[in-house]
Amino acid sequence: MIIIGEKINGTRKAVGKAIQDRDAGFIRHLAEEQVKAGSTYIDINAGTPPGREPDDMVWLLDSVQAACDLPVCLDSANPAALKACLEIVDKRPLINSVSGEKSRMEGVLPLALEHKTNLIILALDDIAGIPETSSGRMEIVRRLVSLALDGGLTQDQLFIDPLVTAIATGTGNAIITFETIREIKAAFPMVHITSGLSNISFGMPLRKIINRTFLSMCVAAGMDSAIANPGDKDLMGAVLAAEMLMGKDRYCMNFNKAYRAGMIGA
Amino acid sequence: MIIIGEKINGTRKAVGKAIQDRDAGFIRHLAEEQVKAGSTYIDINAGTPPGREPDDMVWLLDSVQAACDLPVCLDSANPAALKACLEIVDKRPLINSVSGEKSRMEGVLPLALEHKTNLIILALDDIAGIPETSSGRMEIVRRLVSLALDGGLTQDQLFIDPLVTAIATGTGNAIITFETIREIKAAFPMVHITSGLSNISFGMPLRKIINRTFLSMCVAAGMDSAIANPGDKDLMGAVLAAEMLMGKDRYCMNFNKAYRAGMIGA
Repeated sequence: MIIIGEKINGTRKAVGKAIQDRDAGFIRHLAEEQVKAGSTYIDINAGTPPGREPDDMVWLLDSVQAACDLPVCLDSANPAALKACLEIVDKRPLINSVSGEKSRMEGVLPLALEHKTNLIILALDDIAGIPETSSGRMEIVRRLVSLALDGGLTQDQLFIDPLVTAIATGTGNAIITFETIREIKAAFPMVHITSGLSNISFGMPLRKIINRTFLSMCVAAGMDSAIANPGDKDLMGAVLAAEMLMGKDRYCMNFNKAYRAGMIGA
Repeated sequence: MIIIGEKINGTRKAVGKAIQDRDAGFIRHLAEEQVKAGSTYIDINAGTPPGREPDDMVWLLDSVQAACDLPVCLDSANPAALKACLEIVDKRPLINSVSGEKSRMEGVLPLALEHKTNLIILALDDIAGIPETSSGRMEIVRRLVSLALDGGLTQDQLFIDPLVTAIATGTGNAIITFETIREIKAAFPMVHITSGLSNISFGMPLRKIINRTFLSMCVAAGMDSAIANPGDKDLMGAVLAAEMLMGKDRYCMNFNKAYRAGMIGA
């Protein structure tokens, strides 16, 4: 499972303060913690106004690169911030994200193509919003994947987000995600599937139970990546168990190793 | 989800003692507890030697029928015990189980057909044991389903157990179960799929995490029944979340109701 560690996000109060105070030690600590817990990428999101975002993102990127060797996920829709980061990034980053929205098609996609980054693609656009059917979502995915491949990216540089809407607002909402995942994997076998999962449980009690059950079912459908907190032992237990059950953990080595290291379980 | 409550099993020490002592109050309590927790069937398994089993099963059945209105699952391969129970059973029971093994084909299947019971069918026989491929398991399932339908049972009286073997002994073992579930549902859309799930985690640490993750994935593949302890809040949380996410819980009513009743969650 490709884990995109989500903890360095300026909309979290303590992180926002650290960015404002230029407290690199705090950011370094969050990065190191996520490395230890098994992140594949470190997401960085400044959460600051557009004018400040380029400076803040560059500072975050510097701080994370000083702390660890993992690639980052540049979590911004601001072309100026992305451009500034792409000039100093060490390893091939993941950009989060492009969609069928005009602003992202024009502002984000050309940067991803120019710098040959990895790229998250969201199944939504200005006209349809988040389509209510898997075929509506697939139409947008096909269009964006074509543009990315024509622009020189390979399938395995792409991370498709099928999108998740709250089960409380529609009994079929999880099924649409499962179907979209399966259709994406059938159409583009080498792309990755990622998702922010917690929208599924919005407005419901016992959100963690719903989230980890949903995660297990998404992995069964073909999801191989998640934007998540790798320090959440319960969620990571579900991640590792689900991958193991899908035949992706030879001799159960990853699961057993994580157990012995105290990374999963009570 | 059809829950077959597993707690009245004579191989559990306290239950074995209650059977020996004819402590009907103890059995009644276990039955009532499982009714409250949401069982659909109450499983009864005497776990006693063949000579004693008919008497013990009849006593168990009497005790459970005095305690509640749920149908029972007659969990025995002993034709004499089944016969004695079938003479006094109130509601259409589920028999656990027939397989392709000669002794069960000759001893159990005719009783199920004669009394038009519901019936659990296991995907194994004397020759192949538990086949290592889903197609091997399907061959046995097809044969037994044909015999049951020819004998006058309907698809929805049948509960097929695709069988579960330990993930620790084979990286592909869970996938075989998922595939078998999907193939059974494709071939016989109206049958139920049930399974004892905990074999999956045999020999592994953190068995509960593996079991509930596996359950979620089996429900995603089409499983609609489980032999389980309905009082296990963690497992039942996964059951209700999985059914809700599969679109089988309109307006999330079952999940919310179970939450408010304190049946799931910490």
